[in-house]
Amino acid sequence: MQFTIRKAKKADMPEAYLLIKELAAFENQPDAVKIKVDDLEREGFKSPPSFEVFLAVKDDEVLGMALFYPRFSTWEGVSLHLEDLIVHEKYRGNGIGKALYTKVLQSAVDLGYRRVSWDVLDWNTNAIEFYESTGATVFKNWCIAQIENEVLLNYVKQQSNR
Amino acid sequence: MQFTIRKAKKADMPEAYLLIKELAAFENQPDAVKIKVDDLEREGFKSPPSFEVFLAVKDDEVLGMALFYPRFSTWEGVSLHLEDLIVHEKYRGNGIGKALYTKVLQSAVDLGYRRVSWDVLDWNTNAIEFYESTGATVFKNWCIAQIENEVLLNYVKQQSNR
Repeated sequence: MQFTIRKAKKADMPEAYLLIKELAAFENQPDAVKIKVDDLEREGFKSPPSFEVFLAVKDDEVLGMALFYPRFSTWEGVSLHLEDLIVHEKYRGNGIGKALYTKVLQSAVDLGYRRVSWDVLDWNTNAIEFYESTGATVFKNWCIAQIENEVLLNYVKQQSNR
Repeated sequence: MQFTIRKAKKADMPEAYLLIKELAAFENQPDAVKIKVDDLEREGFKSPPSFEVFLAVKDDEVLGMALFYPRFSTWEGVSLHLEDLIVHEKYRGNGIGKALYTKVLQSAVDLGYRRVSWDVLDWNTNAIEFYESTGATVFKNWCIAQIENEVLLNYVKQQSNR
């Protein structure tokens, strides 16, 4: 299957949003996406942007995307974090995900960064096998922790009242 | 124990580096820290910085630190990521870690961010119990994946030769 990879423009954000929603549904969290298209349009195109996106396109159709941004590792220095890698279901199995993944890794190398990181669900064995086949390490002993929304607000409020 | 929390200055980076090394040793990776003090001085004090640091100090002594930076969640929007939270061993048990953690969460709320995230080792049950006591969720079903250094370079080189 022929396709090209290019950087996303602001006008692509509605398509990016559809892919974000499709990934959330794949991860069994179809209602988790609280952002809107205008959040993507604002945060992705301010200076410096909060993220960048590579799109896989065929003619004018968007097939998939990789959304990423820099992080700072106190072990390896500035690195890239691949937040979302998603290909529309009907286009999977055509090497599009691998091409997007490779493009992000190439960008990290071009920038002189020493690490690319991302997160993967433990039941997504196809993805884990692919990542490991490229030489990546999938760590089983680190947990992701998050506090958000009302819980975050309540904790901070409670502490500030002490 | 009396202490105050303040933002770190460039002149504090040698102290921050010692804490980063101490945390790596605590995590059984004493040789993992590839960055140097000048990486911290450069990346933490460019505009915009790659990270910010809160220090807990008593008189002129640094007791602990929290190092954090923004990320972009495609579910919750811009968030804060707490990369390192560390208190020198001899000062643990005095509420310093909690005060630094609370300060980072307060900053996220002040910025209007809806999430703070971080990573924790699965055997660090004291930390996990503390985080959960604040309302945070520690996810067991997500894995962290990384590709770095020679493996990253080799993969990209191999793919570009195709």
